[in-house]
Amino acid sequence: MDKLSDEAIKEKLAEHPDWKLVDGKWIQRKYRFKDYLNGIEFVQKVAQLSEKMNHHPFISIDYKLISIKITSWRARGLTALDFTLAEKYDELYLHIKK
Amino acid sequence: MDKLSDEAIKEKLAEHPDWKLVDGKWIQRKYRFKDYLNGIEFVQKVAQLSEKMNHHPFISIDYKLISIKITSWRARGLTALDFTLAEKYDELYLHIKK
Repeated sequence: MDKLSDEAIKEKLAEHPDWKLVDGKWIQRKYRFKDYLNGIEFVQKVAQLSEKMNHHPFISIDYKLISIKITSWRARGLTALDFTLAEKYDELYLHIKK
Repeated sequence: MDKLSDEAIKEKLAEHPDWKLVDGKWIQRKYRFKDYLNGIEFVQKVAQLSEKMNHHPFISIDYKLISIKITSWRARGLTALDFTLAEKYDELYLHIKK
């Protein structure tokens, strides 16, 4: 999958205001939970989906705050797949108890 | 629980050579897995134990490399509880498929 141009990344970010560009080649979102174990359940769902898509984000768990950061290693930057996965993670978040 | 002295931390670290002191007030260990979802299962077990003990480490998931970092916020540094949990995490790791 091709690396997106700076212009295309700007457009995608405008469509996904919860996601931020980090270090030029990652997009990141932080998800907050009221209950620690609900956050862990979210991580598990994100991981299962990532394994299925064979595209794994960097995940950090800081108590009830889960941070997800994604890039496409092969393309050495962001691709459309990163934004597709970002949307899928957002959807998982919508359907989890918070 | 009381904050450990520098001397006591040195002794504890000598007993736990897989753990490293980070930024003076954390201990950290990286756990490697052959299978991504086994690493995720480990994170889930660590989280369940942490919730039970009401003492939550910082966890990061970088594909098959899981990093765990722990400190005692109330004591503003490391306590015996941090090393007790480190041992319990090591035990969970021993019993998981890698």
